[in-house]
Amino acid sequence: MREACGLFGVSGHKKAAKLTYLGLFSLQHRGQESAGIATARDGRIRIKKNMGLVQNVFQPAHLNRLGAGMSVGHVRYSTTGSSELSNAQPFLVRYSRGTIAVAHNGNLVNAAALRDKLEGLGAIFQTTMDSEVIVHLLAKPTYPDVEHSLVNSLEQVEGSYALALLTPDELIGVRDPRGFKPLSIGTYEGAYVLASETCALDLVGADYVRDVEPGEIVFLRDGDLRSIKPFEPKAPAHCIFEYIYFARPDSRVFGHNVHNVRKAFGRQLAREHPIDADLVVAVPDSGNSAALGYAEESGIPFEMGLVRNHYIGRTFIDPLSAQRDAMVRIKINPIREVFEGKRVVVVDDSIVRSTTSRQRVKAIREAGATEIHMRISAPPITHSCYYGIDTPTRKELIASTKTPEEIGRHIGADSLGYLSVDGMLESAPHPGDRYCIACFTGKYATQIDNGVVKECFECT
Amino acid sequence: MREACGLFGVSGHKKAAKLTYLGLFSLQHRGQESAGIATARDGRIRIKKNMGLVQNVFQPAHLNRLGAGMSVGHVRYSTTGSSELSNAQPFLVRYSRGTIAVAHNGNLVNAAALRDKLEGLGAIFQTTMDSEVIVHLLAKPTYPDVEHSLVNSLEQVEGSYALALLTPDELIGVRDPRGFKPLSIGTYEGAYVLASETCALDLVGADYVRDVEPGEIVFLRDGDLRSIKPFEPKAPAHCIFEYIYFARPDSRVFGHNVHNVRKAFGRQLAREHPIDADLVVAVPDSGNSAALGYAEESGIPFEMGLVRNHYIGRTFIDPLSAQRDAMVRIKINPIREVFEGKRVVVVDDSIVRSTTSRQRVKAIREAGATEIHMRISAPPITHSCYYGIDTPTRKELIASTKTPEEIGRHIGADSLGYLSVDGMLESAPHPGDRYCIACFTGKYATQIDNGVVKECFECT
Amino acid sequence: MREACGLFGVSGHKKAAKLTYLGLFSLQHRGQESAGIATARDGRIRIKKNMGLVQNVFQPAHLNRLGAGMSVGHVRYSTTGSSELSNAQPFLVRYSRGTIAVAHNGNLVNAAALRDKLEGLGAIFQTTMDSEVIVHLLAKPTYPDVEHSLVNSLEQVEGSYALALLTPDELIGVRDPRGFKPLSIGTYEGAYVLASETCALDLVGADYVRDVEPGEIVFLRDGDLRSIKPFEPKAPAHCIFEYIYFARPDSRVFGHNVHNVRKAFGRQLAREHPIDADLVVAVPDSGNSAALGYAEESGIPFEMGLVRNHYIGRTFIDPLSAQRDAMVRIKINPIREVFEGKRVVVVDDSIVRSTTSRQRVKAIREAGATEIHMRISAPPITHSCYYGIDTPTRKELIASTKTPEEIGRHIGADSLGYLSVDGMLESAPHPGDRYCIACFTGKYATQIDNGVVKECFECT
Amino acid sequence: MREACGLFGVSGHKKAAKLTYLGLFSLQHRGQESAGIATARDGRIRIKKNMGLVQNVFQPAHLNRLGAGMSVGHVRYSTTGSSELSNAQPFLVRYSRGTIAVAHNGNLVNAAALRDKLEGLGAIFQTTMDSEVIVHLLAKPTYPDVEHSLVNSLEQVEGSYALALLTPDELIGVRDPRGFKPLSIGTYEGAYVLASETCALDLVGADYVRDVEPGEIVFLRDGDLRSIKPFEPKAPAHCIFEYIYFARPDSRVFGHNVHNVRKAFGRQLAREHPIDADLVVAVPDSGNSAALGYAEESGIPFEMGLVRNHYIGRTFIDPLSAQRDAMVRIKINPIREVFEGKRVVVVDDSIVRSTTSRQRVKAIREAGATEIHMRISAPPITHSCYYGIDTPTRKELIASTKTPEEIGRHIGADSLGYLSVDGMLESAPHPGDRYCIACFTGKYATQIDNGVVKECFECT
Repeated sequence: MREACGLFGVSGHKKAAKLTYLGLFSLQHRGQESAGIATARDGRIRIKKNMGLVQNVFQPAHLNRLGAGMSVGHVRYSTTGSSELSNAQPFLVRYSRGTIAVAHNGNLVNAAALRDKLEGLGAIFQTTMDSEVIVHLLAKPTYPDVEHSLVNSLEQVEGSYALALLTPDELIGVRDPRGFKPLSIGTYEGAYVLASETCALDLVGADYVRDVEPGEIVFLRDGDLRSIKPFEPKAPAHCIFEYIYFARPDSRVFGHNVHNVRKAFGRQLAREHPIDADLVVAVPDSGNSAALGYAEESGIPFEMGLVRNHYIGRTFIDPLSAQRDAMVRIKINPIREVFEGKRVVVVDDSIVRSTTSRQRVKAIREAGATEIHMRISAPPITHSCYYGIDTPTRKELIASTKTPEEIGRHIGADSLGYLSVDGMLESAPHPGDRYCIACFTGKYATQIDNGVVKECFECT
Repeated sequence: MREACGLFGVSGHKKAAKLTYLGLFSLQHRGQESAGIATARDGRIRIKKNMGLVQNVFQPAHLNRLGAGMSVGHVRYSTTGSSELSNAQPFLVRYSRGTIAVAHNGNLVNAAALRDKLEGLGAIFQTTMDSEVIVHLLAKPTYPDVEHSLVNSLEQVEGSYALALLTPDELIGVRDPRGFKPLSIGTYEGAYVLASETCALDLVGADYVRDVEPGEIVFLRDGDLRSIKPFEPKAPAHCIFEYIYFARPDSRVFGHNVHNVRKAFGRQLAREHPIDADLVVAVPDSGNSAALGYAEESGIPFEMGLVRNHYIGRTFIDPLSAQRDAMVRIKINPIREVFEGKRVVVVDDSIVRSTTSRQRVKAIREAGATEIHMRISAPPITHSCYYGIDTPTRKELIASTKTPEEIGRHIGADSLGYLSVDGMLESAPHPGDRYCIACFTGKYATQIDNGVVKECFECT
Repeated sequence: MREACGLFGVSGHKKAAKLTYLGLFSLQHRGQESAGIATARDGRIRIKKNMGLVQNVFQPAHLNRLGAGMSVGHVRYSTTGSSELSNAQPFLVRYSRGTIAVAHNGNLVNAAALRDKLEGLGAIFQTTMDSEVIVHLLAKPTYPDVEHSLVNSLEQVEGSYALALLTPDELIGVRDPRGFKPLSIGTYEGAYVLASETCALDLVGADYVRDVEPGEIVFLRDGDLRSIKPFEPKAPAHCIFEYIYFARPDSRVFGHNVHNVRKAFGRQLAREHPIDADLVVAVPDSGNSAALGYAEESGIPFEMGLVRNHYIGRTFIDPLSAQRDAMVRIKINPIREVFEGKRVVVVDDSIVRSTTSRQRVKAIREAGATEIHMRISAPPITHSCYYGIDTPTRKELIASTKTPEEIGRHIGADSLGYLSVDGMLESAPHPGDRYCIACFTGKYATQIDNGVVKECFECT
Repeated sequence: MREACGLFGVSGHKKAAKLTYLGLFSLQHRGQESAGIATARDGRIRIKKNMGLVQNVFQPAHLNRLGAGMSVGHVRYSTTGSSELSNAQPFLVRYSRGTIAVAHNGNLVNAAALRDKLEGLGAIFQTTMDSEVIVHLLAKPTYPDVEHSLVNSLEQVEGSYALALLTPDELIGVRDPRGFKPLSIGTYEGAYVLASETCALDLVGADYVRDVEPGEIVFLRDGDLRSIKPFEPKAPAHCIFEYIYFARPDSRVFGHNVHNVRKAFGRQLAREHPIDADLVVAVPDSGNSAALGYAEESGIPFEMGLVRNHYIGRTFIDPLSAQRDAMVRIKINPIREVFEGKRVVVVDDSIVRSTTSRQRVKAIREAGATEIHMRISAPPITHSCYYGIDTPTRKELIASTKTPEEIGRHIGADSLGYLSVDGMLESAPHPGDRYCIACFTGKYATQIDNGVVKECFECT
């Protein structure tokens, strides 16, 4: 499961491009496929984007040319639209009111229908991204200014969106009325800054101010912030997977520190699924916080028994594809001297297809563990996400067809325990009904338009 | 002065992509900035384009993925729009009737006005190319099919255009009513082929059939050709610079072989500007044919005294920028043993800014020539081109401010003779009034919309 | 401080190149500058090497061409010789007995003197590596076979060397008589395998057999191992920094698991430098194991308060070079919600120049820690290493000029405690006198030839 | 057939690297595989070399780092040694007298024997180039200085060599006693310059002084030239293929302009093989000068009927490999309007395997020629070259097994005439016995050591 995107913006600073570069770098975990930065100065927008990691896309010369002013940056892993340069963001167009650059985190669920409608009116589409729909709606000349056009445009779309928009005059931040995706506001040397996660504010040295609220649009120019809330309020639906897996543990998301939420999930998991064991071991790095919580709550010693190889990159090719166990060990290798003769609790954040978990259990068994108790710091994933997370189809999700007991047997664990939905919600901040948990329950916060944007062409 | 573009298309063949690659390769002289090929098969369009030469853009894997079917290819040197990937062609969009790929050679003179109008109706523009306007017009849902939309769209644009369009169902070739740009039809193993110049037909082994006529639209599917001529006829205005410089000497353009036309210009030049000399030398390669014609007509021996270095590429950097004479010699070096003690006629195709000619004359003088008589196989260029040739502004054109005598003195020649406009037209095929000679006379065949598409953003 | 090299070899297997690729990949932490693989089959040696990471140097086509047979691979970070391709290893030459490929981990301390001597006899040197000296000595035609030449050659060199040599006929493994550098033997599907660390054996699925012993030479052909110990025995001098920092925690080095040794260091550190605190936090990842040991011994809870960004690569450029604090935060960001109001023990593996530690302490202080107690799981580094570790000069080593108290004040910690030399040796496996601890004491196991191989040329 | 190498050197100038870059650029036709420049300043040698064309290997930053001082540069197409970076030149080593960079044009015929002998004395070889042998001999410490070592070293080698050597103190130029390969001396702003051909002197603006004489060694420091002639004089054996094909027509080689020599060959060819025809056409560009000579002598009009595509580069891939006729047309396309109904003389410089000539004749026939009379401005090539030209093996040379009449029929020409050996020698400058014509006669100027340097390893 992969997050779609990360956003960063600066409302006016002499180091705008460089700050945005650093901000995107700290949001790299939210999208590794493409990166882009647009800046606005003297009525002119400049842009640089390409496929690849932030540090590979931008050379110093690019940052110098992008320069000072206002900026918006984006990192992307594609959930809709194919993996190609024309789909990289920010998405920059010229229309009747000038130019606008759009960076979008999330996924529209009625993009296909809107697209058909727009094409029927003569629109041409040059990308396969749902984000292009927003820009077409925005370009309709019915309204007198960007603000009214934007409000009208967003009233027509349904789904999840955190947006950072850049016009020659201002930086605009938006969260959809349900607040699926995070977007925070900070200040840096007198300028406002937008970031998907606060770890990006930390990196540039910005101070956290507050989150953009669900349904809020903020218009930022240097140190001025103007806020409107034009939409009918809706029940909040924050993506709980930001807590479980996506966000960095040092980020504050939806108002709370991610590491601490994960530890609370781990403690709750220990209460729900206690076991007599010698060690608690995390699947690094995503299981670290929950494993520590489990260890603290259970009193079982925390150990580091799985070593992750951090050199593995997108270009790594497995030369022994028939020996897939090798690939699992390439990423994470068990320490025999830790596991030998021990009963272990292994804490991971999720089981998607189960292949990896099964190989992991096998490797730990071969390293000498006498009992392996898998503990998952989230409920079973039974449904696909339509709001911007790259999930497999339902039938590929093992929990949609098998019970936890069956899954435990399938992966070869001596026991398997998932965090319960209720336990998760109770141990999450502000217990109650404010999260999107559709991937665990199938109860989607919006209608899901089953039409998909057909990819009618293909870039080779 | 550089040509903007070259087109090639195949109406259905199992080697469509490979044939198009070869066709584009032989049209490389028409555009070295970007190259692209789109193919259509099974209702799906595939595309690959990038900055660079044909042989660098396409790897065998690309051609295999593009594969069989119908195809359209394009090489480009930008005259409008900046030098960036988003401006590479074919230009591929999805609209209400599906997908369409457009390859355009030429330049619209009312693009800015049309663009403003379209934006006023809500259109968004993602490139800075005038070609994007044609696609927006085409996408208007007023008409029932591609044919009617295309006709209506082209009725609104003014300027020069040879077009090759690819839908999932057919390949379409168009020449504007004045026939500014060439476009030929050939057949290859039962399929129709389109090419900007016949040298591309030769290369793939296709047989020349005829030219697309001015104002004609041809619809091609495999071996079927359907032709319409929906536009009001206009006076022909073939770009005479195709004969003077752009087209390859082995091509048949506007119905006649380019090498032979150039020789006829050279012969006429000899009649208009005879001189007593020992040798006739061409500035290679563009002056070769005219020099041979001059030599034949004058009876002065033809010699090869200037050696061109063919290794010079776009990546060449002059490390001694202060010594610009070096750059002229890098391209073309005079042979001392040919020039020493000789009175020479040097034949070139044009003088644009005069800097190069001046350095050339100096180098030949240093090689020992006692008299240097420059002969130019075209009239003085006094006006900019708005139909797709990259010309400097008027004030940079030396002939717009200086007489031939002044230019001759300026470049250091003992005499300078230009071909006269009347001589050019008389020695061209079908003497008379069928050519666009606006760059020599300032009499443009169309109104020129002075508005320019403002580049409101910039890709770094 | 960076390790110089990692070695991997296969004594004969149909997937030799692919196994070596995987082996090198798991040894990537030992050298990220260049990578190379040589294979021998049918009397012919093939090689591929280049600058870059393992996964970037080798494409599938390279591995296919390298193919089956015997192999030797190398990853390198340069300590002697500059960073250039000609210095990448394996180092392959032809000499009187045919061809030989040499992969070397370590550093010769008398290379400059040997080089001068060899040059005096007519040798030419094409690299700036000390390893080239070994090959020149080996090529002397005095001895009848590779074995005798190799023994004679190694009798002349002084310093640290683990070697993997490949001839068309066999794979040879060597450790110097003091055993500075590790080298392990494993078996995989009937073939012997050599690896600098056992994590590489784990990855390919090989079984650990034993270490090459100090002063031992092993000749490997498929499943045959012939061992000789031709050198006069010397006191062992295993590099203790392999335990402190270099080796992966999942490796068994010098016969013991690295993670467990580090934990023992951490426990001893807790005994030597106890403190009243709320949390123990590791500087990830190198401080993880020791911090866990410290926490266990002290009873203070282990926490994860520092988040490491694993995307940072060699191409990362700091755009705000004036703001160096940013760079420290780019690598490791403190979690405010963990540190706020807490007295913390921060465990790191070493302090070299102190710049990073100082910024780290500052960042943790800003995150709200009320007391910061730095604990270092090694003694103060006071001397340079001449045996293959990239250390700064003595005067750059802060501990060579400042006391721990002064360093503690300098970095802004409330207290600073180093592991004592005696405590380190007692808590290491096989307590006693078997380690090279020269970087802490200045007592080098060999004479140090102060002459340095002068780099008389430079590759641009 | 391809030339092996080109040399350029500057004896001391503040723009040494840049001048060498330009010099190499104008010698690019002598080797397109790799390029390198070494410079010496302040006792230190700097080098940059890589695979590729001159303009691709060197970026401005490289030239700046290489900087001022003395320099030597090299372009290479491999005749011995494989195509890999380690074989790129200049070849730079450290030996007892310091450092030396060697650039070699030519081929040693006793390299294998010398190599075996050197290996027997303990030498190691890191490349597969014969040039490495020279350096090993040079490094022998028997003689007191570079001069004596160099003389002694060259007394042992046999074959062809033009050398440019760079020590920290001086630039040294050498031609072998028979003078196989050209090497000229020029001056530029007070410094001496060496170049394989005078076109490189022209380009940088240097004045031609004289050739290095056969058997001469020149020691150059800025404006000082010291000459020695230590070798026993031998009969000259200048490579006549420099006149026939390799050298640029604007170069003065062996004291005479190449274009004029080629024209003389063409005139002689017309006298030896007259024919009644309508046109004389050259195979461009190598046949141009001889065709002009043929036309002048015969009185038959010179025409340009074959158009060469200059965009074809090393990366070009023929996508229709089954249709090889396409490849011939890709390079050179006949103009139908020139050939139609005409009897033509086609002048080319040589026939090697005959495949290309055959396809060329076919294409011209298809373009409408009624008679095709091939005329070759050199005698039939019947033997391989061992002195630095890349020739096929004897059995691949069509003229070694077929008579001219058979070859004429084979390629489909109506007649075929080769220049006779006697005619070639008589029309060459200084008629008589001063050329190496072994490829036409099999009479080699030296013994040919049949041993070949076995390539014992292979770089992937």
